[in-house]
Amino acid sequence: MFIRNAWYVAAWDIEVPPEGLFERTLLNEPVLLYRDSQGRAVALENRCCHRAAPLHLGRKEGDCVRCLYHGLKFDPSGACVEIPGQAQIPPKTCVRSYPVVERNRLVWIWMGDPALAKAEDIVDCFWHDSPEWRMKPGYIHYQADYRLIVDNLLDFTHLAWVHPTTLGTSSAADLKPRIERDTAGNGSLTITRWYLDDEMPNLHKRVARFEGKVDRWQIYQWTPPAVLRMDAGSAPAGSGAPQGTRVPEALQFRHTSIQTPETEHTSHYWFCQARNFELDNDAMTEQIYRDVVVAFEEDRAMIEAQQKVMRQAPDRPLVPIAADAGLNQARWLIDRLVKAEAGSQA
Amino acid sequence: MFIRNAWYVAAWDIEVPPEGLFERTLLNEPVLLYRDSQGRAVALENRCCHRAAPLHLGRKEGDCVRCLYHGLKFDPSGACVEIPGQAQIPPKTCVRSYPVVERNRLVWIWMGDPALAKAEDIVDCFWHDSPEWRMKPGYIHYQADYRLIVDNLLDFTHLAWVHPTTLGTSSAADLKPRIERDTAGNGSLTITRWYLDDEMPNLHKRVARFEGKVDRWQIYQWTPPAVLRMDAGSAPAGSGAPQGTRVPEALQFRHTSIQTPETEHTSHYWFCQARNFELDNDAMTEQIYRDVVVAFEEDRAMIEAQQKVMRQAPDRPLVPIAADAGLNQARWLIDRLVKAEAGSQA
Amino acid sequence: MFIRNAWYVAAWDIEVPPEGLFERTLLNEPVLLYRDSQGRAVALENRCCHRAAPLHLGRKEGDCVRCLYHGLKFDPSGACVEIPGQAQIPPKTCVRSYPVVERNRLVWIWMGDPALAKAEDIVDCFWHDSPEWRMKPGYIHYQADYRLIVDNLLDFTHLAWVHPTTLGTSSAADLKPRIERDTAGNGSLTITRWYLDDEMPNLHKRVARFEGKVDRWQIYQWTPPAVLRMDAGSAPAGSGAPQGTRVPEALQFRHTSIQTPETEHTSHYWFCQARNFELDNDAMTEQIYRDVVVAFEEDRAMIEAQQKVMRQAPDRPLVPIAADAGLNQARWLIDRLVKAEAGSQA
Repeated sequence: MFIRNAWYVAAWDIEVPPEGLFERTLLNEPVLLYRDSQGRAVALENRCCHRAAPLHLGRKEGDCVRCLYHGLKFDPSGACVEIPGQAQIPPKTCVRSYPVVERNRLVWIWMGDPALAKAEDIVDCFWHDSPEWRMKPGYIHYQADYRLIVDNLLDFTHLAWVHPTTLGTSSAADLKPRIERDTAGNGSLTITRWYLDDEMPNLHKRVARFEGKVDRWQIYQWTPPAVLRMDAGSAPAGSGAPQGTRVPEALQFRHTSIQTPETEHTSHYWFCQARNFELDNDAMTEQIYRDVVVAFEEDRAMIEAQQKVMRQAPDRPLVPIAADAGLNQARWLIDRLVKAEAGSQA
Repeated sequence: MFIRNAWYVAAWDIEVPPEGLFERTLLNEPVLLYRDSQGRAVALENRCCHRAAPLHLGRKEGDCVRCLYHGLKFDPSGACVEIPGQAQIPPKTCVRSYPVVERNRLVWIWMGDPALAKAEDIVDCFWHDSPEWRMKPGYIHYQADYRLIVDNLLDFTHLAWVHPTTLGTSSAADLKPRIERDTAGNGSLTITRWYLDDEMPNLHKRVARFEGKVDRWQIYQWTPPAVLRMDAGSAPAGSGAPQGTRVPEALQFRHTSIQTPETEHTSHYWFCQARNFELDNDAMTEQIYRDVVVAFEEDRAMIEAQQKVMRQAPDRPLVPIAADAGLNQARWLIDRLVKAEAGSQA
Repeated sequence: MFIRNAWYVAAWDIEVPPEGLFERTLLNEPVLLYRDSQGRAVALENRCCHRAAPLHLGRKEGDCVRCLYHGLKFDPSGACVEIPGQAQIPPKTCVRSYPVVERNRLVWIWMGDPALAKAEDIVDCFWHDSPEWRMKPGYIHYQADYRLIVDNLLDFTHLAWVHPTTLGTSSAADLKPRIERDTAGNGSLTITRWYLDDEMPNLHKRVARFEGKVDRWQIYQWTPPAVLRMDAGSAPAGSGAPQGTRVPEALQFRHTSIQTPETEHTSHYWFCQARNFELDNDAMTEQIYRDVVVAFEEDRAMIEAQQKVMRQAPDRPLVPIAADAGLNQARWLIDRLVKAEAGSQA
């Protein structure tokens, strides 16, 4: 039911400590994350193959982890390398190991067929660790199907209604975005919104270095299962932003919003809002982070309430509107991948 | 499974604020209650037809409500009157609207076929808003099937056991009530209990204006799904109460107990205890209210515990006793209506 | 699914008060426990046959219990002896009564066919109430299938991993126990472990009366459904313990660990650790009790976590290891009894 052959985010780098064991449920599976002796992230099934004890209650020993129920020891490949009181280790004594790549401060995990995992398919989020950009990493836990969050991110009309005092301006409600679909590979959507000669949203005003009307943009690429990367900003109206000129006082942001299903009805959500100005202004970093959190909590209240209503009557039909173009395409891309995987297994 | 073609209580009038949006689940359906610009109560399905967002997180605009997820606006009939960014409104873009009548300080709602809703079928509770009576409205939430509360209200032998220090006297255990059934319309039961030359229950003693033995009555009409209206009181023994004389010092009360299913296993319960004496004695109003709450919490503890036991072994049989006459008739009336509705749909 | 024709523990004697009513769910059934006027324990179904109200909210009246919903009164055999307002008591007006035997400070209950209940089948735990032994009774509630606790108790390799600072020593991991199976009656397992010339575990050190290496033993009998009784201790190394000599300074303990299923996924657990030295040293009694609780909480954290992982993917296979010999035999004995009961009912 979930797309499996895809790179998912498992954690921010700082969530997986240098020592110690970190656990998280992803796609309904218990996953153990830790770092080997060289600091490389390792992801194993968080379930000892012997009696299903969770390995995160165990102990890291060098590159390995030992289950602290009966002492079985597993290496980073998931192979059991020690069974106390037993000389022979049958080959099936192993736990699942997941391909992991750490890049741009994110720990990416592959939950599907390991043979299909190619690191070059991981999308670029250079603003997470480039010296020219600055961000503070964020995480939210959601009591909702990750696809309801995708719906939200693919439809920017909600900015006007859910976020009138933070991210949105009233112009968001009516503006039609340009949506371009690319079906190569897992597919992607590029959504472009320009608000010309418009007001700045409050979130921009608080860090602005100029006054007056703006030309404002939100240009983002969404890739399944649930990765949104956005170029967004405000430049003085008429300064040429739509034509590609970004004057020095323009506010330029890069935004990341990524979800991974925890279960059918709960999700993980990683996000950040990077900027390329006043990099050493820690107060500004913190303020932008908090502003985004306030806006994202507005979304969460709505989406979790929506999820509850949906679960009361899961079969009641939904009535589409014109603004659904983006989310419909995202759902179509997700469903296409789920069906393709189901077909290739059959 | 629930009776649908019936008037249910949705709220006390004061629960639905002059401004703002109020939500409540009734018969497993999310319901939005609000007042239009003239103060009239409106009840809509609390689920936007677009993406199932709950409307109570939206905003009242004049007589309408706007969903604050994507901005769809609905009028009191449930019709969508605005879709941001879209000129055409397809006719199926609507939410369910429920017939509502506000009477005697209660907001009544019809959850069944709107064509069958007739305001004249709503029972009279004049003591709620008559200048000659005084009450304070009460509400309890129950973790139990509403029919277990009906059982409780239809069997007054429990007064002796559950409420020995509040509503009951020991005579309640053995006294046989007179039960009259009327099957016209949705049916009703009239239950009459007279306790002659008896003790006053504590609840009466605390507001009494005379001492000594009493002739005491509980005469109530119960109508499905779950409406109990009672004439109750104590008069000096031998002063002619059973023959219809109510001397000035007699304590006369009117009591209302009404339930509406929230889900199969949870219920709403509205109640009040009105009196026709010392109307301006606010302390007495408050004291009677609190006494009733104490007694009703005694019931709630028992009934919620009973519900838990029943859910542990739902198929274990129950053994009837003679005192069940009233509740058996009420259950028969409820079942008859449920079956009739199922039959008319088939 | 549960073994029914077996003696289960329902409570420590002190859990069932001289007056008052005590309730506990056993094998998914609500059970009422109380003492009659002579102090004898009585066990009834905690569900009035009339309307399923729980009897523990009722009132003890002499040897009987009265339901405080509608006043039905039941004697210790479960027969109804009074129905208020009704002269005749139909014979089916009764609740289930369970055979109960109080022995060695435990209240044993028989949840199966009463005709098969023989008090002589109850195992002996003389150290609970012998004047030559001293213990403090313990109880833990578990969020886990009782069989996961059985697994734990039948495999002492976990002592080295789960309890390194309390019960275990590193030698526990590799030592092979002798396991003897007796299939007579309900069957039993006798498991013998000797650690010769070994370290004392910390739990022994804290009450030791000698220093140096020890010969240490754990000899226990396990009987289904879930009763473990153990002779355990440490004697000076070479003082002849394995040959049957127990020198005066030897530390001798008797341990009891008994489980009863509450539901499929929750359990009751009674335990104690008796000693035959320094009987009047109350501080030592308390200290041993607390040390055991610390160790048992180590188990509980692991087993409840294991249960959670198992419920996430109940059908994932488990990989056996050599150390499973004991638990496999216990599971075999349990399954044999469950199947035998299913067969005799068919």
